[in-house]
Amino acid sequence: MTTTTTDVPQEAPPGLKGLVVTRTALGDVRGSEGFYHYRQHSAVELAQRRSLEDVWFLLLEGRLPGAQESQAFAAEVAAARELPAEVAAVLPGLARACADPLAALRAGLSLLGGVLGVQPVYDLDEPSRRRDAVRLAAAVPTLLAVAARARAGLDPVRPDDDLGHAAAYLMMLTGRRPEPRFARALEQYLVLTVDHGFNASTFTSRVVASTGADVSSCLVAAVGALSGPLHGGAPSRALDALDAIATPDRARDWITEQVASGRRVMGFGHPVYRTEDPRSRMLRAVAEELAAGGDDPRARALVGLATEVERTVVGVLAELKPGRELHTNVEFYAGVVMELCGLPRSAFTPTFAVARVLGWTANVLEQARDPRIIRPSARYVGPPAPQPVPSPA
Amino acid sequence: MTTTTTDVPQEAPPGLKGLVVTRTALGDVRGSEGFYHYRQHSAVELAQRRSLEDVWFLLLEGRLPGAQESQAFAAEVAAARELPAEVAAVLPGLARACADPLAALRAGLSLLGGVLGVQPVYDLDEPSRRRDAVRLAAAVPTLLAVAARARAGLDPVRPDDDLGHAAAYLMMLTGRRPEPRFARALEQYLVLTVDHGFNASTFTSRVVASTGADVSSCLVAAVGALSGPLHGGAPSRALDALDAIATPDRARDWITEQVASGRRVMGFGHPVYRTEDPRSRMLRAVAEELAAGGDDPRARALVGLATEVERTVVGVLAELKPGRELHTNVEFYAGVVMELCGLPRSAFTPTFAVARVLGWTANVLEQARDPRIIRPSARYVGPPAPQPVPSPA
Repeated sequence: MTTTTTDVPQEAPPGLKGLVVTRTALGDVRGSEGFYHYRQHSAVELAQRRSLEDVWFLLLEGRLPGAQESQAFAAEVAAARELPAEVAAVLPGLARACADPLAALRAGLSLLGGVLGVQPVYDLDEPSRRRDAVRLAAAVPTLLAVAARARAGLDPVRPDDDLGHAAAYLMMLTGRRPEPRFARALEQYLVLTVDHGFNASTFTSRVVASTGADVSSCLVAAVGALSGPLHGGAPSRALDALDAIATPDRARDWITEQVASGRRVMGFGHPVYRTEDPRSRMLRAVAEELAAGGDDPRARALVGLATEVERTVVGVLAELKPGRELHTNVEFYAGVVMELCGLPRSAFTPTFAVARVLGWTANVLEQARDPRIIRPSARYVGPPAPQPVPSPA
Repeated sequence: MTTTTTDVPQEAPPGLKGLVVTRTALGDVRGSEGFYHYRQHSAVELAQRRSLEDVWFLLLEGRLPGAQESQAFAAEVAAARELPAEVAAVLPGLARACADPLAALRAGLSLLGGVLGVQPVYDLDEPSRRRDAVRLAAAVPTLLAVAARARAGLDPVRPDDDLGHAAAYLMMLTGRRPEPRFARALEQYLVLTVDHGFNASTFTSRVVASTGADVSSCLVAAVGALSGPLHGGAPSRALDALDAIATPDRARDWITEQVASGRRVMGFGHPVYRTEDPRSRMLRAVAEELAAGGDDPRARALVGLATEVERTVVGVLAELKPGRELHTNVEFYAGVVMELCGLPRSAFTPTFAVARVLGWTANVLEQARDPRIIRPSARYVGPPAPQPVPSPA
């Protein structure tokens, strides 16, 4: 075994920014090109052409499925969407007690892991780990939908058998079979957000996996990281900003005031992209298509407002913060698309979890192939120790 | 702001071993000296002289409490041990559905966070964060005890009002007021394991905190990391090994066979200490005192077996793996002490969580004072991308 450790510990950059902590074959983000990929394929092209289940298969297996494999994997996922009876019995009470949908998801996933009896990853062979991962992640839409309906005093809804993962989620949540164009728009959003480089929740899932913990521990931890406002918390706030702006002519004043007050502008700017966020670009097209395809004046007004606000804000930011290359990020149009698909704002960040949990499973499985704990160091900077311990007064 | 990032990303050592990822005033482990400390005080001295609540206060406040502060903080902790009615109502069903106590703890802590409505750390001032942290962590013994009793078909037990945290936990778990010597032995174990450098669960709690997530998200994630066999999973297995050895004369054959088979020897060796683990040294003394203090021949036999096995195994390891300095680690005598205190083996790792969750709270609060996300990078090593996405067959 070779290591690069030395007697004098290296100090990592703040926030570990730019530090390569692992190697991965799952994908990459090329910030300066405005491009990202899953395995060897452009994520945007995948969102244009393939189902969410196919993309999950790609992440797990390293290649896209053939027609029969695609059907078989979709069937495996559909079967795993059904909650075990013990979970279905406890979940509604648990959800009603929780103020926050992500708290209910954390609790529900923990419970599901406990009921399924998932085992520490290092104690399992690869097929068993993969089975645990699929059973847990596939149930996330059901956990969220059952919990959301329980909070609203509604019974769970079983999705039609012929629906894919995205459409089934929409149906379980809203109680109605979705129009195909909304199901497909949501599916495209989900494909676009399955994975995205080495973000905080992905890293969290891998740190937990490195201890040998079971897959549910890894996914629950990642949900916790995703719930942080600096990570997954913004899509509904970007939409709240659109509400506050209300009409395009107020966009300039709004953004000028935001910048003057020193606040972070929700929906704009990304730590990695120095160009337009490719997810944002595609989701704008998805939103425009949804608005054009239906006969809903509110949908048209929202998309019109969003695109005009985007144009104005990007322009003002270029004036006020020259050279910073601040564009809309994924959250801006993600909120618009989810709103058009009929999701309540309380479901926006949870819906991000429906997608990202698939990426976490692939990361956990990749991490588990290298059974080495991730255990960094810290530098003590407190008062000199030891000082004698006084006895209690 | 200065950073040490460059255009060519640095690559971290495998497992981040030896890499300083943050600065902390909470404590340190000096592996070559066999010494560790919380804030400015020796952890072993603290375990000898102070209560668990005083040590938690020290970690949170940076100094030991005076007599009145000590009482007030113990009262705050005692009050926070009581579960809100919504949690008490759901937890037993949840625990009966979970095979694994740590799965129930993850679920229960998520639920408690949801019921308390804890908020993202960056949205709170310091006293509010601290209040969330104390309310969540103080309830861990109750969550574990109620869950364990529910799984055994038993009702919850309310602890006597005059008991400290460790004694209350024992009483809630066993249903009986503990003898003071057992309560104190358990308390000493808990003090010794509150914190210990920058281990994987502590790091996990800080990564999640860095996203701005609420304290329950951070603690639940850390429980997940602790559940990994490479991290918190060993105390019961070390005791299982003692069962397998059964008599001291079989220790040499057992360890020789373990080493020959290439298995990791549970209870021996530590990634940081190159000397005896100071926790192990003190817990051996605690165990010997418990055996000497009572009139229980089984306790004497267990402690006698443990010390003889330790002597033999350390000797054989020194012969077979010269220069490796393999000694008993904390898990070896932790298991013995918990067994003597009447804890079932299924409660060993959960009991570790009762202690370590206090350390996590201090780490989360320290991390939250520097609102910067921890977001490292990974190097893509898969097939060249992009390759065109074929349409579904």
